[in-house]
Amino acid sequence: MIIFLGVKVLVILVDAMGGDSAPESVVNGCIDAVNEADGFEVLLLGDKNKITEILNKRNFKSDRIKIHETTEVITVEDIPTKAIKTKKDSSMVVGFKMLKEKKGDIFVSCGNSGALMAGALLILGRIKGVDRPSLAAIIPTKTGKGLIIDAGLNTVCKPINYYQFGIMGSIYIKAMLGLEKPRVGLVNIGSEEGKGNEVLKQAHTLLSNSKLNFVGNVEGNDVMMGEVDVIVCDGFTGNVLLKFLEGTASFFMHSLRNIFNTNFKTKLSGLMIKKQFMEYRSKLNPEEHGGAPILGVNGLVFKSHGNSNAKTVKNVVIKASKFASDNVIESIKNEFSNMEVGDVEQNL
Amino acid sequence: MIIFLGVKVLVILVDAMGGDSAPESVVNGCIDAVNEADGFEVLLLGDKNKITEILNKRNFKSDRIKIHETTEVITVEDIPTKAIKTKKDSSMVVGFKMLKEKKGDIFVSCGNSGALMAGALLILGRIKGVDRPSLAAIIPTKTGKGLIIDAGLNTVCKPINYYQFGIMGSIYIKAMLGLEKPRVGLVNIGSEEGKGNEVLKQAHTLLSNSKLNFVGNVEGNDVMMGEVDVIVCDGFTGNVLLKFLEGTASFFMHSLRNIFNTNFKTKLSGLMIKKQFMEYRSKLNPEEHGGAPILGVNGLVFKSHGNSNAKTVKNVVIKASKFASDNVIESIKNEFSNMEVGDVEQNL
Repeated sequence: MIIFLGVKVLVILVDAMGGDSAPESVVNGCIDAVNEADGFEVLLLGDKNKITEILNKRNFKSDRIKIHETTEVITVEDIPTKAIKTKKDSSMVVGFKMLKEKKGDIFVSCGNSGALMAGALLILGRIKGVDRPSLAAIIPTKTGKGLIIDAGLNTVCKPINYYQFGIMGSIYIKAMLGLEKPRVGLVNIGSEEGKGNEVLKQAHTLLSNSKLNFVGNVEGNDVMMGEVDVIVCDGFTGNVLLKFLEGTASFFMHSLRNIFNTNFKTKLSGLMIKKQFMEYRSKLNPEEHGGAPILGVNGLVFKSHGNSNAKTVKNVVIKASKFASDNVIESIKNEFSNMEVGDVEQNL
Repeated sequence: MIIFLGVKVLVILVDAMGGDSAPESVVNGCIDAVNEADGFEVLLLGDKNKITEILNKRNFKSDRIKIHETTEVITVEDIPTKAIKTKKDSSMVVGFKMLKEKKGDIFVSCGNSGALMAGALLILGRIKGVDRPSLAAIIPTKTGKGLIIDAGLNTVCKPINYYQFGIMGSIYIKAMLGLEKPRVGLVNIGSEEGKGNEVLKQAHTLLSNSKLNFVGNVEGNDVMMGEVDVIVCDGFTGNVLLKFLEGTASFFMHSLRNIFNTNFKTKLSGLMIKKQFMEYRSKLNPEEHGGAPILGVNGLVFKSHGNSNAKTVKNVVIKASKFASDNVIESIKNEFSNMEVGDVEQNL
């Protein structure tokens, strides 16, 4: 946080080297972000020459984007923990360290997910009482928006994890969407209690006994119908669902385009509804919803797809700037401060 | 199979008592099926009075629908194996027995999934070499159609199961859609080899070493994009995906209706494209795709949602009549006749 003329300015640390099309997409996305929204500065971490080259091609308020040179890059091929421990001067490791040293308010990266998780755990550390930090992703639903947690960090989970995902997810969605009593549901293959394997049954018990607004098991079809606000599941299910939604949205849009192109009449129909259709399309566009926080660690970390383009990065940076001004982490710390995993599990 | 004037007529055994709105939806669906398609007869199993009452309200060729009285019903609350063992005169158990005794060519039920699986295993028995029978469900994709296997019978799977799902799925989709070399993909949270947990890694190894047209891991977004024909996953993932697709389709349709209702111009646009839109809608409608075979048992069993309505049942019965005329089971028997699970697992 920088105080400029008495005004606090958020500093967003951005891993310029993370992502399939980095640094181009990341740097351009950050430029678009500062050109579109106010109230924050961007500190790009990475190859100074490459970044400068991209910056020089664009117009933006130069005092809002700075560069911090780093000499190494963590790639998708890198083994997460090893990469975090050995690539000390990588854009990702430096980003985590600067966040820890309060040289920035939030860290954004489109890099190696596993490394991002490892870095969050090793450098920032878990919030006391949190067994497994989690990734939380917002999706559009029939009634508004929903939060999928875990969205891909923990492929195999224990009952306590689902329970804690429910708590962290409720705190996050309350802060982001202002929901007072978010409805929490456990993804399962049947709505009746006692469905699913032993782990899910125990997770159901823990969630039922919590003070959360737990509505019980939800099936795949309930998710998009907006039956719940916080969609609790393991990271494998969450990741598959999120990407399945992307593919489905793309498939639906493709089919609709074909329909509008059937004949003259349908083409005309398409022109008449183009404006509304484009709005609808962007609502479903994952690029609009890209960006998810790692909840449960001592620092604000925002992750985005490895395939993020400039538009995604722009939206993620702007979303991150809003997220950074909330005190979600403090709320999670308060909630978990007196939680002993062992005590909770004794309720099983 | 009945031979009538030298013409073979398929007999479809239908569990009239299985499903949330049975027997009404089931019986009406069967009437609609015989009124719409030829080449089969329906034998309804269940409460004679209730069934007759529904039949009497409708017009249809009476010689194409018969009733076989049963006195018990297996409900969704019943414990699967126990129900199959104790409710000897239930429509489901009798259906399996008549199928085994060749008094029908295929058995269709919207009843208790667990009981249906238990009945298939206990009464029909597994095909030699098959470790776990599986449910295979067809979904619409960008390039045509895809097959999700397992769609919900085996929530936790061993590597050998994924391997065998790939084989059975390939045989089924080849028979149903005429694909010569169906592309098989393993649902995972990353396309790179070595992604996912140990079980998925081993499943990947087995599929890679098979003679299947295995294209590797596929992510959620690849599924609807039609990157593969046979989508191999555990039953938990398959079930969640299938239901998620239902909810997503419903959500999309709901949003589109809202768009068309925005103003006069959009309403007019909607009228101009109504025909094509309805076709598109029905393509996505799960009722059109309802019905999935249990593959790997000694008999043709077709399962449909518990919430199937008359339209779903109609489509399932007609689809089942086509499925019954194929020799999928023989193909699976041939494929597995020399397979020793132990031998396959030695490749790990």
